[in-house]
Amino acid sequence: MRDLAQTVIQRIEALGEISDEPGRLTRTFCSPAMREANSLVGSWMREAGMEVRQDAIGNLIGHYSEKSPKSKVQSPKSSAQKILLLGSHLDTVRDAGKFDGPLGVLVAIACVQALNDARIRLPFAIEVIGFSDEEGVRYQSAYLGSKVLAGTFSRKELTRTDANGVTMTDAIRNFGGNPDGLAAAQLDPKRLLGYAEVHIEQGPVLEQQNLSVGAVTAIAGQTRVKLTFTGRAGHAGTTPMNLRRDALCAASEFVLAAEFFAQRRNGLVATVGEITALPGASNVIPGRVQLSLDVRHPNDARRRAAVAALKKRADAIAAHRKVNFDWQLVHQAPAVTCDRQFSSLLSKAVKHRQRKLVLLHSGAGHDAAAMAAVTPVTMLFVRCKKGISHHPDESASVRDVRVAIGVMSDFIGLLYAAP
Amino acid sequence: MRDLAQTVIQRIEALGEISDEPGRLTRTFCSPAMREANSLVGSWMREAGMEVRQDAIGNLIGHYSEKSPKSKVQSPKSSAQKILLLGSHLDTVRDAGKFDGPLGVLVAIACVQALNDARIRLPFAIEVIGFSDEEGVRYQSAYLGSKVLAGTFSRKELTRTDANGVTMTDAIRNFGGNPDGLAAAQLDPKRLLGYAEVHIEQGPVLEQQNLSVGAVTAIAGQTRVKLTFTGRAGHAGTTPMNLRRDALCAASEFVLAAEFFAQRRNGLVATVGEITALPGASNVIPGRVQLSLDVRHPNDARRRAAVAALKKRADAIAAHRKVNFDWQLVHQAPAVTCDRQFSSLLSKAVKHRQRKLVLLHSGAGHDAAAMAAVTPVTMLFVRCKKGISHHPDESASVRDVRVAIGVMSDFIGLLYAAP
Repeated sequence: MRDLAQTVIQRIEALGEISDEPGRLTRTFCSPAMREANSLVGSWMREAGMEVRQDAIGNLIGHYSEKSPKSKVQSPKSSAQKILLLGSHLDTVRDAGKFDGPLGVLVAIACVQALNDARIRLPFAIEVIGFSDEEGVRYQSAYLGSKVLAGTFSRKELTRTDANGVTMTDAIRNFGGNPDGLAAAQLDPKRLLGYAEVHIEQGPVLEQQNLSVGAVTAIAGQTRVKLTFTGRAGHAGTTPMNLRRDALCAASEFVLAAEFFAQRRNGLVATVGEITALPGASNVIPGRVQLSLDVRHPNDARRRAAVAALKKRADAIAAHRKVNFDWQLVHQAPAVTCDRQFSSLLSKAVKHRQRKLVLLHSGAGHDAAAMAAVTPVTMLFVRCKKGISHHPDESASVRDVRVAIGVMSDFIGLLYAAP
Repeated sequence: MRDLAQTVIQRIEALGEISDEPGRLTRTFCSPAMREANSLVGSWMREAGMEVRQDAIGNLIGHYSEKSPKSKVQSPKSSAQKILLLGSHLDTVRDAGKFDGPLGVLVAIACVQALNDARIRLPFAIEVIGFSDEEGVRYQSAYLGSKVLAGTFSRKELTRTDANGVTMTDAIRNFGGNPDGLAAAQLDPKRLLGYAEVHIEQGPVLEQQNLSVGAVTAIAGQTRVKLTFTGRAGHAGTTPMNLRRDALCAASEFVLAAEFFAQRRNGLVATVGEITALPGASNVIPGRVQLSLDVRHPNDARRRAAVAALKKRADAIAAHRKVNFDWQLVHQAPAVTCDRQFSSLLSKAVKHRQRKLVLLHSGAGHDAAAMAAVTPVTMLFVRCKKGISHHPDESASVRDVRVAIGVMSDFIGLLYAAP
C-alpha cells in the first residue's frame, strides 16, 4: 500500500511551486497560478476515483459517489443522497507557506484515495472542495469560495476591483467561472451531512503539548478597533515631566492593560499589532498615537464584555493623563461553534489515533466558519513547526500528516456507523 | 522715545517673511534667504550705531564701540579693549516659528539702539552676533556659526554635503564666506567679557508661573539612545497570551519605566519620541520594536546615572519577558553651566524688572553652549505662548519682549558697574 502521508507532502511541495510571483509563493483568487493548481489537484482527485468539476466561483470540487442503491429503480442522484464535504482552500497569502489550505485539500483526497484503493463506497457521497478564495488577498474580501457554496455571497462584492483595476466579475469570467451563476452554485443544505476541515494550527499549542493533532471546538469571534490617544506634542528637552501630556505614555499603559486583561481570561487574546507615534522625532514628545487592537474569543458574549472593559480602561487612562482618546470599531465577526455531534465523532477518532485529546479553538478564520451558515462543521488542527504560519517557513511533519489522515479516515468510518 | 519692543516684534514679522521655501519659514545656513536676512539685520545694526561685518562662516556681527579713551595716545583697538557679546542665531528649522533665534538678535540690537539713542558709550565694546547656523538643518551638524567663533569648529565638517550634494566648503564660498579663514575667525578669548543670549523658553514653565522672563542656570546635557526589543512575531488569533514574546509589550513597559523614573528626579527629562513596531499589522504580534530615548539633565553625573539606571531597567524588562534588547548610544553632549557672576548680575536685573525671579535650566541646546567653550555665558528665557516652538504658532508677546529689553539693558548697566 502506498504511503499516503508521503504523497500529501510531495503534493504540497509540488503545489508550492505554482505561484503568481517568481521566487515566492503567492496564489490568489482566479489567477493563472490558481488555474494551474486547480488543474493539478483535479488530476489527483480523478486518480482517487472522483468526478471533478469547477463551479461558478472557481471552487474545485471532486465528487466520490456513494454506494449504488440495491434497487436500480431509484436514481443515484435522488434527493435521498447525502454528501459529506471535506476540504480547505487552494489560494494563499503573499509570500506564503505551502501548508495553509492545501494540507486540508490533500488530506481529504488521501482519505478518498484510501477508500477507493480498498474499493469502498459509503452510503453517502464525499465531495472534496478546494476553495478558490479564503485569504482575500486579491479583492480584500475573504471566503469568496465558501460564501458562494453557503449562499452568503453578496453580489455587491462583484464590483470590487483588484490592484490592476480588474473587477471581480471580469476575473471570474476570465477564469472560466460564471458571475451570473453564483446563486445557483449554492449547495442544497438538505443534502449535506456536514463539512470537516483539516488545517495547520497556525499557533504553538500542539507543539507545546507535543501532540500531532487537536480537535477544534470553535472559531473565535473577532473585534478590531482603531484607537487614537491625543495629548500634546512638545520639546523633549524643555517640557518638564509634570507638564507633559504624552500620548505614547497613555498608549503604553493601554498596551499593557490589554495584555494584563487577556492574560487573566481563559481563551481571550488581545493584541496591539500596529502603533504610530506622531510627530515621531526623538526630541519631540508624542502628541498623537494611533494603535490597533485585535480581540478574539470563542464566546461572543465574553469577547464583547472584554472589548467593553478595555474601552473603559482606555477611557480611564485618557482621563487620568488628561489626553483625549478616540475608539473606532473597524471590524466585528461572531464566533462559530463546531457541531457537537460532528465534533464528538472527530474527538473519538483523535483519541483512537493519539493517546491524548486536546480541544482547541481557532483564533484564525477558516472556510469552516463560512460553511457553518449552511451545514454542521468541525475542524482538525495539525501541529505546525514553531507555530509559524503565513511565512515560507510554515511546515508540518509527514508523521503528523499521517496521524491526520488516520483520524479523518476513522472519522468518516464513525460517521458511517453513526445512528 | 520709540517703542523698542514694538520694533522688535515688527522686525521679527519682517524676518519671518524671508524664507527659502514659499508659504512657510525655512532659512538655512548660507542660503539665499540667509543672505537677505543678514542684509536686513545688518541695516538695523547700522541704524543702532554699529559697524557691521560678516565673518568667514557667514555670522553677521555688529560692533558698538566702547567709550573713547581719555588719552588719544592709546589705540581704541588696543589689547585692553574688552567686548561683551550678545546675540543668537538667524537660521531656522523647517516650517519654523519666527521667534526662535531672531528674538535674541533683535533684543540685543534694541539694547544697543537704546544706548546709542541716549548717546551712551560704555567702557567696553558690544558685539551683537547673528549666528549663521544653530539648527543644523542644511548639514545635519549644529552650531556651525558659534563653533567657528569659539574655535571648536572641526575642518572635517567642510566635506559634508547638503541634500543637493553641495559641500559645506562651496556653500560658504558661494555665500561670500571664506572656508580657509575659519580658524582666523575665532574670537580672542582674552578680549571677551562674556556672552549673553536672549531666547524664547521653548517650554511651558514661564507661562505656567505667569512670568515674562526667567534666568537660565545651565544648558542640560543630553544622551540619545536607540533601543530595540526583539521578541517573536506571531498570529494575533492563534498564539495564546502565555506563549507570546511580544516586543511591543516590552517596549511599553520601558516607556512607562522611563517616565516614572524621570518624574521622580528633579530636573531630569526622559522621552521616547519614536517607536516602530514590526511587522506592523493589526493581526500580528509585534516581533521587533525600535524606540528612541532622549535623556537630559543639567548635571552630567545625574544624567549618566539616569541613563545607566534606565539601561538596567530595559535589561530587567527584557529578561523578565524573555525578549532580547539592544542598546545603542547615538549621541552624548555634556551640560553647560552658566557663569556664576554673570548669571547673578542677570538675576539681579530680572528681580528689578519682574517681581519674581525664576531660575530655569535649558533643556534645548543653544549657541551659548558652544560659546561657553571660550567665554562666560548666561541666558535669559522669554515666555512663549503655550510653550510651542519649532512651529509656525511660536509666539512671544510685545509685553514680555519689553521686559526682556529692560532686563538686558539693566544687565549691561550692572556689568558696567560691576567691580
